[in-house]
Amino acid sequence: MTRDARKAGRSNADGKPSGATGVPKSSGKMWSGRFRAETHPLVERFTGSLGVDHRLAESDIQGSVAHCRALGRAGILSKREMAALLHGLGKVHGEFKSGRFVVRREDEDIHMAIERRLTELVGSAGGKLHTGRSRNDQVALDVRLYLRDELRRLGEYAQRLQRVLLERAQAHLDVVMPGYTHLQRAQPVLFAHHLLAYVEMLSRDRGRLEDATRRLNVLPLGSGALAGTNFPLDRAYLARLLGFEQVAENSLDAVSDRDFALEVVSALAIVMMHLSRLSEELILWMSQEFQFVEIPDSFCTGSSMMPQKKNPDVPELIRGKTGRVYGDLLALFTMMKGLPLSYNRDLQEDKAPLFDALDTAQASVEVLTELMRGLTVNRGIVKRAAESGFMLATELADYLVIRGVPFREGHAIAGRVVRYCIDRGKELQGLSLQELQGFSRQFEKDVLDVLTVEGAIERKGQVGGTARKQVERRIRALRKHLA
Amino acid sequence: MTRDARKAGRSNADGKPSGATGVPKSSGKMWSGRFRAETHPLVERFTGSLGVDHRLAESDIQGSVAHCRALGRAGILSKREMAALLHGLGKVHGEFKSGRFVVRREDEDIHMAIERRLTELVGSAGGKLHTGRSRNDQVALDVRLYLRDELRRLGEYAQRLQRVLLERAQAHLDVVMPGYTHLQRAQPVLFAHHLLAYVEMLSRDRGRLEDATRRLNVLPLGSGALAGTNFPLDRAYLARLLGFEQVAENSLDAVSDRDFALEVVSALAIVMMHLSRLSEELILWMSQEFQFVEIPDSFCTGSSMMPQKKNPDVPELIRGKTGRVYGDLLALFTMMKGLPLSYNRDLQEDKAPLFDALDTAQASVEVLTELMRGLTVNRGIVKRAAESGFMLATELADYLVIRGVPFREGHAIAGRVVRYCIDRGKELQGLSLQELQGFSRQFEKDVLDVLTVEGAIERKGQVGGTARKQVERRIRALRKHLA
Amino acid sequence: MTRDARKAGRSNADGKPSGATGVPKSSGKMWSGRFRAETHPLVERFTGSLGVDHRLAESDIQGSVAHCRALGRAGILSKREMAALLHGLGKVHGEFKSGRFVVRREDEDIHMAIERRLTELVGSAGGKLHTGRSRNDQVALDVRLYLRDELRRLGEYAQRLQRVLLERAQAHLDVVMPGYTHLQRAQPVLFAHHLLAYVEMLSRDRGRLEDATRRLNVLPLGSGALAGTNFPLDRAYLARLLGFEQVAENSLDAVSDRDFALEVVSALAIVMMHLSRLSEELILWMSQEFQFVEIPDSFCTGSSMMPQKKNPDVPELIRGKTGRVYGDLLALFTMMKGLPLSYNRDLQEDKAPLFDALDTAQASVEVLTELMRGLTVNRGIVKRAAESGFMLATELADYLVIRGVPFREGHAIAGRVVRYCIDRGKELQGLSLQELQGFSRQFEKDVLDVLTVEGAIERKGQVGGTARKQVERRIRALRKHLA
Amino acid sequence: MTRDARKAGRSNADGKPSGATGVPKSSGKMWSGRFRAETHPLVERFTGSLGVDHRLAESDIQGSVAHCRALGRAGILSKREMAALLHGLGKVHGEFKSGRFVVRREDEDIHMAIERRLTELVGSAGGKLHTGRSRNDQVALDVRLYLRDELRRLGEYAQRLQRVLLERAQAHLDVVMPGYTHLQRAQPVLFAHHLLAYVEMLSRDRGRLEDATRRLNVLPLGSGALAGTNFPLDRAYLARLLGFEQVAENSLDAVSDRDFALEVVSALAIVMMHLSRLSEELILWMSQEFQFVEIPDSFCTGSSMMPQKKNPDVPELIRGKTGRVYGDLLALFTMMKGLPLSYNRDLQEDKAPLFDALDTAQASVEVLTELMRGLTVNRGIVKRAAESGFMLATELADYLVIRGVPFREGHAIAGRVVRYCIDRGKELQGLSLQELQGFSRQFEKDVLDVLTVEGAIERKGQVGGTARKQVERRIRALRKHLA
Repeated sequence: MTRDARKAGRSNADGKPSGATGVPKSSGKMWSGRFRAETHPLVERFTGSLGVDHRLAESDIQGSVAHCRALGRAGILSKREMAALLHGLGKVHGEFKSGRFVVRREDEDIHMAIERRLTELVGSAGGKLHTGRSRNDQVALDVRLYLRDELRRLGEYAQRLQRVLLERAQAHLDVVMPGYTHLQRAQPVLFAHHLLAYVEMLSRDRGRLEDATRRLNVLPLGSGALAGTNFPLDRAYLARLLGFEQVAENSLDAVSDRDFALEVVSALAIVMMHLSRLSEELILWMSQEFQFVEIPDSFCTGSSMMPQKKNPDVPELIRGKTGRVYGDLLALFTMMKGLPLSYNRDLQEDKAPLFDALDTAQASVEVLTELMRGLTVNRGIVKRAAESGFMLATELADYLVIRGVPFREGHAIAGRVVRYCIDRGKELQGLSLQELQGFSRQFEKDVLDVLTVEGAIERKGQVGGTARKQVERRIRALRKHLA
Repeated sequence: MTRDARKAGRSNADGKPSGATGVPKSSGKMWSGRFRAETHPLVERFTGSLGVDHRLAESDIQGSVAHCRALGRAGILSKREMAALLHGLGKVHGEFKSGRFVVRREDEDIHMAIERRLTELVGSAGGKLHTGRSRNDQVALDVRLYLRDELRRLGEYAQRLQRVLLERAQAHLDVVMPGYTHLQRAQPVLFAHHLLAYVEMLSRDRGRLEDATRRLNVLPLGSGALAGTNFPLDRAYLARLLGFEQVAENSLDAVSDRDFALEVVSALAIVMMHLSRLSEELILWMSQEFQFVEIPDSFCTGSSMMPQKKNPDVPELIRGKTGRVYGDLLALFTMMKGLPLSYNRDLQEDKAPLFDALDTAQASVEVLTELMRGLTVNRGIVKRAAESGFMLATELADYLVIRGVPFREGHAIAGRVVRYCIDRGKELQGLSLQELQGFSRQFEKDVLDVLTVEGAIERKGQVGGTARKQVERRIRALRKHLA
Repeated sequence: MTRDARKAGRSNADGKPSGATGVPKSSGKMWSGRFRAETHPLVERFTGSLGVDHRLAESDIQGSVAHCRALGRAGILSKREMAALLHGLGKVHGEFKSGRFVVRREDEDIHMAIERRLTELVGSAGGKLHTGRSRNDQVALDVRLYLRDELRRLGEYAQRLQRVLLERAQAHLDVVMPGYTHLQRAQPVLFAHHLLAYVEMLSRDRGRLEDATRRLNVLPLGSGALAGTNFPLDRAYLARLLGFEQVAENSLDAVSDRDFALEVVSALAIVMMHLSRLSEELILWMSQEFQFVEIPDSFCTGSSMMPQKKNPDVPELIRGKTGRVYGDLLALFTMMKGLPLSYNRDLQEDKAPLFDALDTAQASVEVLTELMRGLTVNRGIVKRAAESGFMLATELADYLVIRGVPFREGHAIAGRVVRYCIDRGKELQGLSLQELQGFSRQFEKDVLDVLTVEGAIERKGQVGGTARKQVERRIRALRKHLA
Repeated sequence: MTRDARKAGRSNADGKPSGATGVPKSSGKMWSGRFRAETHPLVERFTGSLGVDHRLAESDIQGSVAHCRALGRAGILSKREMAALLHGLGKVHGEFKSGRFVVRREDEDIHMAIERRLTELVGSAGGKLHTGRSRNDQVALDVRLYLRDELRRLGEYAQRLQRVLLERAQAHLDVVMPGYTHLQRAQPVLFAHHLLAYVEMLSRDRGRLEDATRRLNVLPLGSGALAGTNFPLDRAYLARLLGFEQVAENSLDAVSDRDFALEVVSALAIVMMHLSRLSEELILWMSQEFQFVEIPDSFCTGSSMMPQKKNPDVPELIRGKTGRVYGDLLALFTMMKGLPLSYNRDLQEDKAPLFDALDTAQASVEVLTELMRGLTVNRGIVKRAAESGFMLATELADYLVIRGVPFREGHAIAGRVVRYCIDRGKELQGLSLQELQGFSRQFEKDVLDVLTVEGAIERKGQVGGTARKQVERRIRALRKHLA
């Protein structure tokens, strides 16, 4: 540091003698030793995070208990001190559990609040808890502990939704519906097959959440502020105590890494995207035009003005909240862009979007599960829909292929048959053999057997196809997997 | 509606006789007439918005007062009814002001809560307030009223920041600093000129917020749920009462338009982007490597572990919160994508990101204003920095141009001079005339006068350049503009 | 610069004597004077922007012509030099127009390519063009010139779409359709009213584009690299030549400002959002469930496998491309976050998203205009849809209100009537007076007149309502405005 | 389909007789059988994807070869037909390899182009290739094949960057630098330790890419358009031929799933975020204020105006391109939001962002690898920086802790020592024992040994700490892992 810099460092000084005997002016803050002025109230409000990180209290105490044990094992705390701290932490935990814990304005964050309270309870030993630890590795620890729990819970919610979907699929195995591409009727499929598509999506979602959990299950504690710790903390022991599979191998990385938040919220955004698709379909299906399903009254709300309205609010809100989680993801990505190593205060902004995304996904999965449980299918309407829209045209083309007509030619012939039907207001099933033979000599009497919805379904008999036996096979496999 | 559909509509019926005498089961909800089952508690939690829209209470009452007057004017309310409702609304307003207003679990949102409370206070006349109005046009109204106020406030905050920047520029008119491109020293500039760049950005920001305010200052009330209203409400009168410059010309558009939210949050995201740039510079300038400025102790915080730390938390958090507002913007854009007309419940999700973006921008502008007020410049360090880095090389090239050398050639010669300096560990100011003449015969004695920081500054004398007279002129103009 | 730094600067030197007589190794680059090594091929590929900025050629030449004139006016170029440069620029322009312009690998960007080619054509005078100018202010100029043109064009496209929508509204004034909220039938509206909602959106879009154009119509030229220019360029003259309304008042801001890109792409993202909503509706309306409209064969495509398919590809792609423009917006916002002043190379990444967003919006508006022109409405189906769904329930409630029943009570009674209808598979229009009177004594004979779709439409007679006279009035006003 | 709908379907008909003998008007398109009008040129331009999907040619041919073999195995193609098709596909492949393949305007996409060309080469057998297949499952297949290759390549690039970082770490094991939090000097760390942080990030990146690859390595072929296929294609055989580990278990899901794109681009966005952080540091380190490193001339470029400039363009562009990949991610997420099952044309918009993200990440990793290889560290400057900034204050606090002082108290004492130093313009190392003892009686002579940078480094000896032995251990482990 140059001479000038030193002077610069003094530029706010008030000229009065200070030093060893000086009284720090920003009393109350745990880091106030070198500071001369108290924190500005605007700054206190702007930088405080208690509103957001309050929910980390349990994880923080869990982490402190382990840290305390490691300090004891290393001989940094005496047996007695360790016991006192553990006892105090237990008390603080109790205060949280019972809702008696009181946060103070000057507490900054939940970590400082807990240490402050602990010190009130156990006296000066409280000041020893933070030995060999920094808020940087402490926060990284707390969030990982919290996430691990929340992701397990979300995984369970997702499984429950899968089970409800499987149960609904099983219960509607006989329902044929129009399958759509481009929201145009395309080919008939089983309603159960349609529901199973969402079960597959949720399986991938769970896979992503599990991969993310595995990758975040790494102990940051022991990384100090950024360089590691001066004390002989046994990190392997800490990892065992806290259920981590690995210890972070680089202290700089450990305190500035937020990959886990990005990876988790990415996975949650995909979950929400899947739910937004199902929601879109529920909204369509409940419209007067589709009328494929009914959502129970208890899952709809009415209009303040129009007495007849029964609105699919739940799927609409899920669809809308998808944007919320996308926004959370982009908040995190933006925050991380271009930050130099290691910890920067920007990182404090990870928690609001992370928690919001978790809450939103959990609530959405949960409410959709109950809604799907109560869904009713209007079988007659769905059945009739499955029988129109020329959805058997592909069957016609494939019929010709089996008789040796190249597919492209068969496709063209079937296309002309469809145009003929449109012009005459007929469905394919209403054509006579004679009419068909006007398009190709290959059509023989058995073509009429091909032109049935049931036949079309059954012919899709390869793995992954909509034939009933395949759908039943898949339900069995998924049930077993989810059991 | 087909026969089948009608049956479908009945699919949840319990078979018991119902009708005129039936008691609605979801009692408590204002729209429950046609419903048979109470809202599921999960759904109540999932769809409720009181946590978010509580802040609309005043706007809602303001809007209801106007609606009430219009109903009176149209003869739909009697004088007495109108008086009673206005009195009741005043009372409810008082309850909000004094913090006595109590929200109930079944209230759904702030609009229903107010109507419910009003009805408690004034009796059945309360049930007349919603005549000719829907929550759809009511919410659109409330948010526009609220935004109009908040944007005015933010505009004032932005002006205050501009004034502080101008004052700091004026106070440091003699400070020359290195100007940067690519974070490499490029050419010397006045520190005041640098600060003025941010004043220009904030002027554009204010322009965008004013344009957005103008475009949103349109009355949606009278649009009903989507089709307009059956009652002869005088919308021009309503607009006058509420200070709107126009009435919405299309009811479908009025209830499903959220352009204003997108436009406002876009403008806020640009504000935050600007603040993130200034924050980045403050962080750089406060680093031990730059040491250009000091931020007062009261605007910094320390480290839980490292006793020497004094961290620029405020600019770091502003930089981090930039992501938050970007995320809010994308949440809104995602929400709106592909929604059919008119109102969809997805739109309820507009408020959380909109309010969050407003709060974040306001708080950021406010705290940065105070921080800038307390900023100290380390004049000596900045001055010395301005004298190194070969920042006069362009002056050298331009010197040659004035003597008739094509700029490209002059640039190449100056480049070779710089390389020569680097090899010899010299600055340009340290070269002798003889050395310079080794590169070009055009160099004469007066070149040494060109190689001064002050001269380089003064030569940038065109409008927008960093010459002191231009900077002073601009400060005067901006001051006048902001007065 | 410290001693050590100077040595550092030399750390790549090869130890051989260099200096005035040294031959620069990275020959070919216009800035190579101080460089010793040629640009690495990977770097050339990574940093080159010709693939993207090629389209700026005309704007670049336009800007150079003005710059050239200003240099002449300032006496920096002789009459003869100016004439030679202008002639040369004309030739280069011709080469672009005719497609003969050849880009070279080492050209870096379009600006360098043009200067290089100019120098080939006019000799050493070419080296004088860049006097008093930097690529930083040059690029800022070119993009603003380019945008001004493109935004005018897009405004025209948007107007054309508005005119087509107005024409279709006029042609379908007699078509009543169901109006939707929550995709549930809500109240009947005129199809024309529905189309007009999009005309209003496009008016706001045009307003935003105009505001953005006005705000970007500011001359950056004369800002040099960051500090201004050493030469007496008359910036007001330049602004007049190039049609700018203002000159940039701060050189640092001028070269690092990309607000215009953010503001424009925000506005384009809102345009796309609007188009995505109309697209969603077209897709719904063309489904077999709605069948409200037909899109001409020439605007649809078929399936490679299913012969009957006629898919609404155009609206689907517009809906999909909405994400593209949202992504462009986020790319720009992310790029700008936290950049210190002034120019940073990151800013080069503004062009790809900006141009992509412009291209996408223009193409989408253009193709949708033609599609709407060819759209056919299935009047019979739409009419029938408008008559079901209990959409007259609000009329029933309002009927009671007029007879003095508080709206909330009227709403509840109408809700019970609807439930009664659902249970019996009836529409409201099918109820007898006696049945109605079972719900309220207020129902009298004239209630039956209220229960007609036409009446419901006509009663929405306030400004902005769906009554035919209001819709016709609005069509006339908009037509006049667009003429 | 109702009567009215049928008429609706005819609404564009020209009234002329058509049917079996009618000539389709949109000749040229492979799906034109049912169409009457040719595709509008605007639509052809708007919907065509050849500019983007051209790069899928090889994957498409690879997929078609497998499909062809499966058709042969199923007896749908004769031996001779299969041989002809395989021969033809080989020829088409050759045309691509040699750049002779010619795309036609009417080709729509690369898949149709290849089938069209194949049919030209092998005659009507070409029309049999598409039997039992749809573009929907074909495209899903091609993209998965393509991604698998590209992700492997990117994984190799990432490993190469890791190896270069390890090599640079090894070569600079003796360099101590300031470690930063909040961009303030915090504690000394090894430069090697700092580089290793990025190696850890890249390991997580590779893990995510591998997980994504595993999850996408699933065969969609055999899913047909949405419902499965009518032909006995052996999907397990197809999977073996194409190296897939699983077959897609649900046809609806298989054709509409784009999770793989979202997951891959999420992972790429995290890669870019990491690179943006290293880039930010390189830009800082190369500034005149830091001067920690030199980037070779061949990796920098100059200024068009300022002759002295040597700019860190490569890291700046990487930082800027980070926004690009974030934008790609948002584009994909937006595109998928709220799409009903199954395939919608929106999905075509997956390729542009996916390919752009891949290209950007690959190019960025590649160019940064070479840049890091050429990076030079200014050892003297870095060393001196490591010795200032009061970075040993934590050592002082921990010294007291070892002597039994509670950490909070030790922290406060060390804070006061720092303030004393600032006031007197001293570094901690410059204090006498006497001065220290003025702050605490616990300071004894050995405290002076604690106040050395080397000691501070060596004391961070736990796993993950910056002690040299730990860093060496980690380098060895990573090397082994990467070998």
